[in-house]
Amino acid sequence: MPSSKGAEAGGAPRGPLQPFIYRRGRLQVLDQTQLPRRIRYLTLTGARATINAIEKMAVRGAPLIGVVAAYGLAVEARRLRGRPNLRRRLKTSAQALKAARPTAINLTWAIARLELLLGDPKVEEGLLPELLSSEASRIEEEERQACEKIGEIGAEIIEDGDRILTYCNAGRLATPGIGTALGVIYQARQAGKRIEVVVCETRPLLQGARLTATELSRAGIPTTLITDNGAAWVMEQVDKVIVGADRIALNGAVANKIGTHLLAIVAQRFGVPFYVAAPISTIDPNCRSGEEIPIEERDGREITHLAGQRLAPPGIKVRNPAFDVTPPELLTGIITEKGIIDQPLGPKIARLLALG
Amino acid sequence: MPSSKGAEAGGAPRGPLQPFIYRRGRLQVLDQTQLPRRIRYLTLTGARATINAIEKMAVRGAPLIGVVAAYGLAVEARRLRGRPNLRRRLKTSAQALKAARPTAINLTWAIARLELLLGDPKVEEGLLPELLSSEASRIEEEERQACEKIGEIGAEIIEDGDRILTYCNAGRLATPGIGTALGVIYQARQAGKRIEVVVCETRPLLQGARLTATELSRAGIPTTLITDNGAAWVMEQVDKVIVGADRIALNGAVANKIGTHLLAIVAQRFGVPFYVAAPISTIDPNCRSGEEIPIEERDGREITHLAGQRLAPPGIKVRNPAFDVTPPELLTGIITEKGIIDQPLGPKIARLLALG
Repeated sequence: MPSSKGAEAGGAPRGPLQPFIYRRGRLQVLDQTQLPRRIRYLTLTGARATINAIEKMAVRGAPLIGVVAAYGLAVEARRLRGRPNLRRRLKTSAQALKAARPTAINLTWAIARLELLLGDPKVEEGLLPELLSSEASRIEEEERQACEKIGEIGAEIIEDGDRILTYCNAGRLATPGIGTALGVIYQARQAGKRIEVVVCETRPLLQGARLTATELSRAGIPTTLITDNGAAWVMEQVDKVIVGADRIALNGAVANKIGTHLLAIVAQRFGVPFYVAAPISTIDPNCRSGEEIPIEERDGREITHLAGQRLAPPGIKVRNPAFDVTPPELLTGIITEKGIIDQPLGPKIARLLALG
Repeated sequence: MPSSKGAEAGGAPRGPLQPFIYRRGRLQVLDQTQLPRRIRYLTLTGARATINAIEKMAVRGAPLIGVVAAYGLAVEARRLRGRPNLRRRLKTSAQALKAARPTAINLTWAIARLELLLGDPKVEEGLLPELLSSEASRIEEEERQACEKIGEIGAEIIEDGDRILTYCNAGRLATPGIGTALGVIYQARQAGKRIEVVVCETRPLLQGARLTATELSRAGIPTTLITDNGAAWVMEQVDKVIVGADRIALNGAVANKIGTHLLAIVAQRFGVPFYVAAPISTIDPNCRSGEEIPIEERDGREITHLAGQRLAPPGIKVRNPAFDVTPPELLTGIITEKGIIDQPLGPKIARLLALG
């Protein structure tokens, strides 16, 4: 794909960015709101700081917020070590962490695993800081391995020379591993396949432009940036669409960044295969269909303002849902660490969970 | 539609903004790049200044750039009055004006009308300044009347209580009259129908957020702003889609702001009627189908930068087509000043032009 006039020259920096670092009880997260301009880490000293970082999207990406929230609770336990009512305080913090963002199931799921420890009367309070930290590490490791496996399995459907459209950021900056949608791309490339990526900028917070373009540039993968509204224009020029997911219902409906549904409709019109890549933990056994997935609506200022500048007239009404739900019939398949779930999604998800 | 949290209070200023003023040989245009922050007029002293204003999109909107370019040539004639080779100089300027932006047919069409005068050996050179100015005024008046009529005819398909999705800006800021797509809304409202409008922000230059939201707020029409990628999410909540056009091929394919094709695909999926509103002059008798319409590709910096701030990593490739082409089968109809062209569009366009 030839670049637009005015595309910029100049070498991009190389090498992956670490979205978080947890070492000896110290939790630091890359402030993703500052990318690509600045690489700055925030130290999260407890549950409150972790919630703030998740709410303002310094940390984002469904698998990543689950792991960081789990570490945040471990850090809180360490901070409060020896205080009275530690268990009760941590239960309150766990509730608050789960409420930081409503749509991604990973947050609920990761904290729920730590809550099992908090709720177990056989676990001594004094051991909680270490036990929570160990459990957070286990979640991290599981998610990292899931990404590897998703990438490996997904890479099999990628052909040499494929041009792949992706959306938002489902990569190293969204997970504790190589990513889900981008994990597939990294593993296909690792397997020697030539790949080009097209990414939509992903308004309003521009995770495609700011994060995915940065991440793929640093990995040396040829990437072209377009606006979200260029999707119909570009669809005839791509071979596959691969995106991540924030929550998957039992019928296969997928909640993901607002605009995903749009891409799926356009992909169907042009006969382009549309894949979601996500760990099994993204499937919510309590959601039968997309209607049951809670959709976060964020501050309208994310749309009306950018870089301190007003983009719309004062007083204008705004709707800013952060996610939409793609119905199952628009998906070609869901790439998981246990294989690709293809159509019909509902029955195959049920079988997979029953085996699980 | 309830507003997002964080939607802003405060009364918006009222009353229409004039996109240009031509008085006694002086041409001023509202600098639309500055909206909604500043209301600033630029004085266009000749062809070069007019071309610059069109290229940088201080003046935009297919019918508007046609009229302003025509006045720009008249101003150039006035500026050069009495100089040798006036006719030849003006022919060169006319060529340059037509090349300022390639997609909107109105620019070509309006200047072609002035070129008839320049090419007529019976017209004395000394009379050119006045004759060009009169012809520009005639074009302005015709376009203004076409808008009124499009609005009147389109208003008949609007029902009381309709929620209408529009895109980019096809209103008072895009024409010398009340607009095309928004003209329909103004006339329906005038006829006493209650209307709500949803507008997509329209990246990269945000004409929806900056211009349409401003224009409709000033007209007191309830308006909700969403991102472009919210189209699938919002489509179930709207009754009709109405947009403008930059050029229409003989088969009914419509070139309009990038993203229009996307909206049409989504509208079809949800069974929402999709209308284009445009004067007959937008139909290009030299384009048989959409493939023949030239599509302008603009500077990638429109996407990678905003308000002086970098939104994407250095070196990233960008594609920035300013328009896309919606195939005729996705349209419910084209609202023109001579009536609504419905399916099958091609034969009905042919009949209309033959009658013309």
